[in-house]
Amino acid sequence: MKITVLTLFPEMYDGFLNSSIVSRIISNDLLEVKVVDIRDYALDKHRHVDDTPYGGGPGMLMKVDVLHRALLDNKQDDSYVLLTSPRQKPLQQEDLQRFSKMNDLIIVCGHYEGIDQRFETYIDERVSIGDYILTGGEMASLVLIDGIARLLEEGISSESLNEESYNDGLLEYPQYTRPPVYDGQSVPEVLQNGNHAEIRRYNLKMSLKETLKYRPELLENRNLTKEEEKLLQEIRCEEEI
Amino acid sequence: MKITVLTLFPEMYDGFLNSSIVSRIISNDLLEVKVVDIRDYALDKHRHVDDTPYGGGPGMLMKVDVLHRALLDNKQDDSYVLLTSPRQKPLQQEDLQRFSKMNDLIIVCGHYEGIDQRFETYIDERVSIGDYILTGGEMASLVLIDGIARLLEEGISSESLNEESYNDGLLEYPQYTRPPVYDGQSVPEVLQNGNHAEIRRYNLKMSLKETLKYRPELLENRNLTKEEEKLLQEIRCEEEI
Repeated sequence: MKITVLTLFPEMYDGFLNSSIVSRIISNDLLEVKVVDIRDYALDKHRHVDDTPYGGGPGMLMKVDVLHRALLDNKQDDSYVLLTSPRQKPLQQEDLQRFSKMNDLIIVCGHYEGIDQRFETYIDERVSIGDYILTGGEMASLVLIDGIARLLEEGISSESLNEESYNDGLLEYPQYTRPPVYDGQSVPEVLQNGNHAEIRRYNLKMSLKETLKYRPELLENRNLTKEEEKLLQEIRCEEEI
Repeated sequence: MKITVLTLFPEMYDGFLNSSIVSRIISNDLLEVKVVDIRDYALDKHRHVDDTPYGGGPGMLMKVDVLHRALLDNKQDDSYVLLTSPRQKPLQQEDLQRFSKMNDLIIVCGHYEGIDQRFETYIDERVSIGDYILTGGEMASLVLIDGIARLLEEGISSESLNEESYNDGLLEYPQYTRPPVYDGQSVPEVLQNGNHAEIRRYNLKMSLKETLKYRPELLENRNLTKEEEKLLQEIRCEEEI
């Protein structure tokens, strides 16, 4: 898979692309990442990439002609073009899965002050990583590359099925490693004694407890099994004591 | 403000911290960022930072003693400690605003396979940037630094009030810059003719239209003004034609 990023800040990608995890995936030929400087496509002598908005208002907008030239020069027949934008529902894991199946992905990094709307006729989809304001689309592109790279590696790994637990609609249960006692805190007995049925039940209960505390809305839309209902009942009783 | 990041991948931060926007904010003394390698706090001869989970299961967990030593060595009396974690509601702009008022923020980057649960007794809050899976907490820490840096700079800038439009619960309206016609696409007449009242009304209508299309749930919980109700009615009629 190839991902091309169009950005005004190409220097932001160096550390990330050379970091151990993503560089390992790249060097395994699972992913190629190309970073393109949008400014190289500004043709006037001052290399302007932005201009003031029609109708007034603060800030500058990225120019449609510069963006379009940069895109055309890097687009292939099968390219799928994403534009980072605050005007979209937040990204979900299903979106990353969908993007990871593309052959050629182009990510255009918008500027937080905005881009000329007409550029949107040349893209396939807007993408937002969350309901918060960042300096530009670069962070969003890094999140996309990281999340997609992970899926590409998982696709060739045997661990993929084991991680499904994350996606089953509950938060993950707490986990513990050595030492058995640290700073007065012990690893729960049941996890040390190794009865698989008990461990499974305990972990499911802790998953439910985490979800109830941090993401209760995930339980509202869930078809609870009989066992989950019983464990939730236990959790509620314990909390009343 | 000082932000300290505890991470297993310190090399991921170089490009970002030297990029033009964040480095400008750092060089203006608004922000100091320190990146700490958690591995420096592994004391055994192989510098192990992770170990297998009690009770079985795939993957490795970051060790509580290593994380705790790293934290203690970097914590001050007024430090506020965040742990990146998938087990939390997604970050909102209000959270960034809250964090930007801290004097000393520590961000501990979890590993995607997990950390020993007991470390959580030493943190103040979990933070997640969205409902998707990344290779580790590094991306989340970058998003936090970027979003906070932006707010620190905005705090000393006169443009802060102008940007409130983003936060008023509607998506931003489309904007346009020169040229007036590009690739057969014209800038809307009303924006070129400069009647302020008409422009304001047009932009509000386009904001509503964007929101209706991309984030309809934002309109459901909104107290619409009479004008907004009328514009939404217009939009619905136009769409039926």
